[in-house]
Amino acid sequence: MSSRPWLDPHHDGSETHVPDPHPALGDSAAVLLRVPRGSSTTRAWVRVVVDGEPELVEATVDRTGEDATWFRADLRVANPVVGYRWLLDGGPTDYRWLNGAGLFAHDVPDAADFRLSTFEPPPAWATGTMYQVFPDRFAKSQDRPAPPWAIPARWDDPVIGEGPDTPHQLFGGDLDGVTAHLDHLASLGVGTIYLTPVFPAESNHRYNASTFAHVDPLLGGDAALGRLAAAAHARGMRLMGDLTTNHCGRTHEWFRAAQADPASPEAGFFFFTRHPDAYDCWWGLPDFPVFDHRSPGLRRRLYDGPGSVVARFLGPHAFDAWRIDVANMTGIHGEVDVAHEVATTIRRTMRATVAESFLQAESNHDAGRSLLGDGYQGTMNYAAFTRPLWQWLVPPQPRPYAHGKYPALPNLPGRNVVAAMRALSGVTPWQATLHAMNLIGSHDTHRVASLLGDPRLVDVAFGLLASYPGVPMIYQGDELGLEAWGPEYARLPMPWDHPERWDQHRLGHTRELFTLRAGSSALRRGGLRWLSVEDDALTFVRESPDQAILVHAARAGHVPVRLPAAVVGSGLPALVGAEDLHADADGVVTLPADGPAFGMWLIR
Amino acid sequence: MSSRPWLDPHHDGSETHVPDPHPALGDSAAVLLRVPRGSSTTRAWVRVVVDGEPELVEATVDRTGEDATWFRADLRVANPVVGYRWLLDGGPTDYRWLNGAGLFAHDVPDAADFRLSTFEPPPAWATGTMYQVFPDRFAKSQDRPAPPWAIPARWDDPVIGEGPDTPHQLFGGDLDGVTAHLDHLASLGVGTIYLTPVFPAESNHRYNASTFAHVDPLLGGDAALGRLAAAAHARGMRLMGDLTTNHCGRTHEWFRAAQADPASPEAGFFFFTRHPDAYDCWWGLPDFPVFDHRSPGLRRRLYDGPGSVVARFLGPHAFDAWRIDVANMTGIHGEVDVAHEVATTIRRTMRATVAESFLQAESNHDAGRSLLGDGYQGTMNYAAFTRPLWQWLVPPQPRPYAHGKYPALPNLPGRNVVAAMRALSGVTPWQATLHAMNLIGSHDTHRVASLLGDPRLVDVAFGLLASYPGVPMIYQGDELGLEAWGPEYARLPMPWDHPERWDQHRLGHTRELFTLRAGSSALRRGGLRWLSVEDDALTFVRESPDQAILVHAARAGHVPVRLPAAVVGSGLPALVGAEDLHADADGVVTLPADGPAFGMWLIR
Repeated sequence: MSSRPWLDPHHDGSETHVPDPHPALGDSAAVLLRVPRGSSTTRAWVRVVVDGEPELVEATVDRTGEDATWFRADLRVANPVVGYRWLLDGGPTDYRWLNGAGLFAHDVPDAADFRLSTFEPPPAWATGTMYQVFPDRFAKSQDRPAPPWAIPARWDDPVIGEGPDTPHQLFGGDLDGVTAHLDHLASLGVGTIYLTPVFPAESNHRYNASTFAHVDPLLGGDAALGRLAAAAHARGMRLMGDLTTNHCGRTHEWFRAAQADPASPEAGFFFFTRHPDAYDCWWGLPDFPVFDHRSPGLRRRLYDGPGSVVARFLGPHAFDAWRIDVANMTGIHGEVDVAHEVATTIRRTMRATVAESFLQAESNHDAGRSLLGDGYQGTMNYAAFTRPLWQWLVPPQPRPYAHGKYPALPNLPGRNVVAAMRALSGVTPWQATLHAMNLIGSHDTHRVASLLGDPRLVDVAFGLLASYPGVPMIYQGDELGLEAWGPEYARLPMPWDHPERWDQHRLGHTRELFTLRAGSSALRRGGLRWLSVEDDALTFVRESPDQAILVHAARAGHVPVRLPAAVVGSGLPALVGAEDLHADADGVVTLPADGPAFGMWLIR
Repeated sequence: MSSRPWLDPHHDGSETHVPDPHPALGDSAAVLLRVPRGSSTTRAWVRVVVDGEPELVEATVDRTGEDATWFRADLRVANPVVGYRWLLDGGPTDYRWLNGAGLFAHDVPDAADFRLSTFEPPPAWATGTMYQVFPDRFAKSQDRPAPPWAIPARWDDPVIGEGPDTPHQLFGGDLDGVTAHLDHLASLGVGTIYLTPVFPAESNHRYNASTFAHVDPLLGGDAALGRLAAAAHARGMRLMGDLTTNHCGRTHEWFRAAQADPASPEAGFFFFTRHPDAYDCWWGLPDFPVFDHRSPGLRRRLYDGPGSVVARFLGPHAFDAWRIDVANMTGIHGEVDVAHEVATTIRRTMRATVAESFLQAESNHDAGRSLLGDGYQGTMNYAAFTRPLWQWLVPPQPRPYAHGKYPALPNLPGRNVVAAMRALSGVTPWQATLHAMNLIGSHDTHRVASLLGDPRLVDVAFGLLASYPGVPMIYQGDELGLEAWGPEYARLPMPWDHPERWDQHRLGHTRELFTLRAGSSALRRGGLRWLSVEDDALTFVRESPDQAILVHAARAGHVPVRLPAAVVGSGLPALVGAEDLHADADGVVTLPADGPAFGMWLIR
C-alpha cells in the first residue's frame, strides 16, 4: 500500500464498481475503476479469462468527477465464473496489477482475481446482523425432566468447563426461551438468529445428533421451532439452523442401523473399517462417525431433494438459512473428494424449497475455492476477519488460541493484519466476503471481553465487527460483556435475572452500532476502500451508491491521521462515539489521535 | 525478503527438504526446514491440511550442522495431494509463515502452500534440456513437390512475416533433416527434442491439423518419425510431440465428416451453433474449430485408450512425451469445464502405453491448479520465468509482447521480478516447477537476441535459462544468435550452410551452459535458495544432496554482493564465465560487480 492510499486506484465487487454483479452467461458486464484525482494512472486494461485464456480489454473513461476519473470496461461473461484483474498504465516505468488483494508492481497469480459470478445472488435479507444462540444456555421457558445422559444444572450454577462431564451439563434452555427474548434481539438491530443445533443429541451442544427427524423435545420440539419462526418472521427477522453434514452422533439412528446390519442401507452412509466397531470418525473421536457422501441414500435423506432434512426444516415453520457445520471437511475423506458436489446439492435443494434461502459454511481458514456462488454463499470468517482482528487487539502477552491448534496468538501491527485481511479476502469473491459471517467470539472461543481485557479494545472490536464488510455475528452474552477464559467456560447461561451483571456500556454501544448498521446501505452492502493503515490505527471508507461512511479504529494513541477534504469532505457528522469532523483552513481533516478508540462519520 | 536472505529459514520440495516427494496415500512423509545459524527462529510447526481441516504439527530438531539447524516434521498423507506450510516461532513478537511464495509476517491463504503429491513422479529423463524444432524451418533432407495450398520457398528466401501468405510459405524442412543434425543437438547438451506439430495441415505451423492418422508425408511420414526416434533414442535423447487437443483445422477429416452429416459421430465432436457453417472456434478464427470434450467418441479417438492418437504415437517408434497445445483452454468452453478430466485421461492413457512418458501443458499464465500431478506434469513457464526475466532484462523503452495481448513489456527492477517469480512458482507444486518448460524465446515470440539487444544481456538470459529450476527449452537458432522482430519473422530457416552468420560466442556459451547442466544434479533437480535480490543483481543457490552451485546474474554494474564464507564456503571454483572466488581475511566472499554478466561457481 502506498504512503497515500487515497490516491490508489480502486475496485471491488460492490455496486459502485460492478453495477450488475450477477450477469447471465453470455452477457456483457461492466466493471468500473476509480482513479482518484492526483493518481499517476492514465490508462487501464482489464485482464479477463475467457474459456481458460486471459484476454486484455482496454478500459475507457466513463466519466470524470471532481475527485476521481472512472474507467470502464465491458467484459464478456463467457463462463459461469469469470476471473478478472486490472492492469494500470502498463508502460515501461509504471506497471501495476490491481486484484482483490491490492496493488502489485509485478506479475501475480490468479487466486486473488476479482470474480463475476452468474450464479444467483444471496437474498437481500442475508446481510442482516446475526445473533448466535446456543440454545441450552440462552433462556429457559419451563422446567423439563433431564434425560439419563444429562447432568442437570440450575441456571445460576457454574459451568463445568472441562473434563468428561462438560458436554453433559444441561441447563435446559429452550426455543420458547428464545421467542420470549426477541425484544432484546430487536433492540440490538439483529436481522438473523443463528441457532446452534436443535436436533436431539446426547450432549448440551447437540453437534452429535441422535436423529434429524425432529427438533429436540428438550427444546420444545418442532412446535417450539414453529412458534419461534413465526414470532421472528413477524418482526422481520430470519432464522438460521446448524446442520452437521460431516458427521453425526454415535447414538444417531442411522449409525445404529448401520452397526446393527452391515447389509442395511445405512451401512453405506459411513466408513466402516471393520464392522461394526471400527469406523472413521471426526478428529478420531468415536462419538462422531463421519458420513460417506458418495452414498446416494445418505444424500437423499440429508440434503438431496424435498424429503431431505435440509428441505424439511426450511420454510415459514422453521429455518430460512442453514449453516453447515465443518463444511470445510464435508465430503473430503482420504481419496474421496465430493465436497463441491455436496455443497451444490445442498444449495440446489434449498433453492427449490425456498427461493430466498441462504447457505452459510463453517470454515476456519481459506475457503475461497468453495465460495464461487454455486454452493456455499458465505463462510465463518475466522481467516480474513477474526484472527487478524484478534492479532491486532490482543495484549502482547502470549494468548493461546481456543482450540490449542496454534502455538500462540501473536500481537501484530496494523500493516500486517491488514495485509492478512486483504490477502485472505482477496481469494474470496466479493459476494462471499459480503456474506461472510464475521465474528469476534463464538461458542468455540474465549469471551472477547476476557481475550482483549481493556474495554476500550472491546469497543474497537465491536466497532470493526459492525463496520467491516461481511455479516456481523454477535455471540449471545457478548453484548452484556460476559467474561470467561476457555470456550467451554464461556458457554455461560445468559444472566437475564441479574441485570446488575450486565455491562451497560457494552449493551448500549452494541445497540448503537448494530442499529446504525441495520439501516445503512454502506455498511450492509458497500465497498471497502482503505485510506490509512498504520501500526496502531486503521482508517477506511465503506461506500454504496447512496452512502459513504468513514471508519477509524485505533488500538492505541497514535500520530494523527490527516486526510484531504477532497477525499472525505469538509464536514463529517459523527455517527458513533466521536465528535463531528471539520476540515481546517488548509483543507485537511484530522482524525482523533487517541486510543483505543473507534469512530464512524458520515461522508455523504 | 529480509536484508540478509541467507539467514532466512528455507524449505522447498527438493530432495534435501523432502526426502520422499511421492509418498503413498496413508504414508507418513518427512519434511525438513533449514534454519541457518544466526536466524531468530527457535521453534517451528507445520500446518498440514487433513481431509480439508488444517492441523498444526510441531517440528523437532533433526540435526544441527555447522551452518544450520534442521527441523523435521512427519506429516500424515491423508489425501492424494497434501498442502502444508511452516509456521516459524509463533510467539507473540515473531510470527512468520513460510510457503512456496516466501516468508510472510501475517496470515496467508492456501494457494501458495507447499504440496506433497501421491501421484507418480515424472520420469528422471524429463529434466533434460529441451530443444524446440519447428520442422518446416529446421533442416531439409530432400526436395518434395509443394501441395496446392503452399507457397514454396527456397531455404535462403526471406520469411513472409505478415499477411495472409504467412502460414502458407513452405520451406520444406522435414524429420530426416532433424535426424541429420543430432550431432548439433548433442553438442548443446540437449536431452529432449520438442517438435511442434507433425500431423498434416494446410499451414507451415501445422497447428490446424487435417488428420491425426499419420505424420505429414511432407515431413517424411511415420517412417521418418521412426528414424528420428531411433536415432535420438540411440543417443539417449527423447522426443516430445505437440498435440492440438483444443481444436483441429477446418480441413480436418473429423470436421469434414461432421459438416457433411449432422448425424455423424463426428458432429458431436464440435460445438455447432448452426450446422454446418456456424460453429465455435478458437479465438473466433474459423480455421480452428474447437473440440467438445464431453464427447466420449472424441476422447476415444484423441486420447482415451490404446487406439487413441495419444497412445498410437507414443513409444520407441515415435514420441516419449506430449506437449498439449492450448492446454489451458482444452475442455473449457462456456458452461462446460471438463479440463481436469481431459488432463487426467490423457495422462492415464500415456501411463498405460509407456510408463516412463511425460505430459507437458501449454499455458501462458498461472496453471497451478492443473499441475497437481494427476494430469499435466509441467507447463510452459511464461508466467513464473519468461515474463519476469524479460521484464528484468529488456531495455527501458516500451517493447510490445509478441501477441499484442499486453500493452507493453515493462522494465522492472530485480526485486519486482523475483516477487513475481516467487508468487507464481509458489502456486505451482515443486515437481511441476522442476518440470516447467522454461524459455527465453519460442516460435511465438521475438528472437531473444533482438528483444534484449545487448549480447551481454542475452548471456544473462541464457545463464538464467540454464540455472533456474525447470526444464530449459532452447528455440532452434537462438543458440546461433539469430535475430528477428515479430514471431513470424523469427521463424527463420536454420542457416546451416552459412556458418559465417552464426554467432560463435553464443554457440560456445550455450554449449558450455547446457553441457554443464546435463551433468549437474543441482541444476537438474536441486532446490532454489535466494541469497541476494537487488534491482540490478540476483544471487541464488541451487542445491541437491550431493552438489551446490552459486548463481549470480547482473543486468548492470552494481554495488558488490558480499556473502559470508559460512554461507557459501571460502573457495569457489568458477563453473561458467567467471574467475574463481575466495573469501577475504574477514570471511567474506565478494561477487563480481560488473554487468551485464552471469556466473556460476561450485559451492560443493
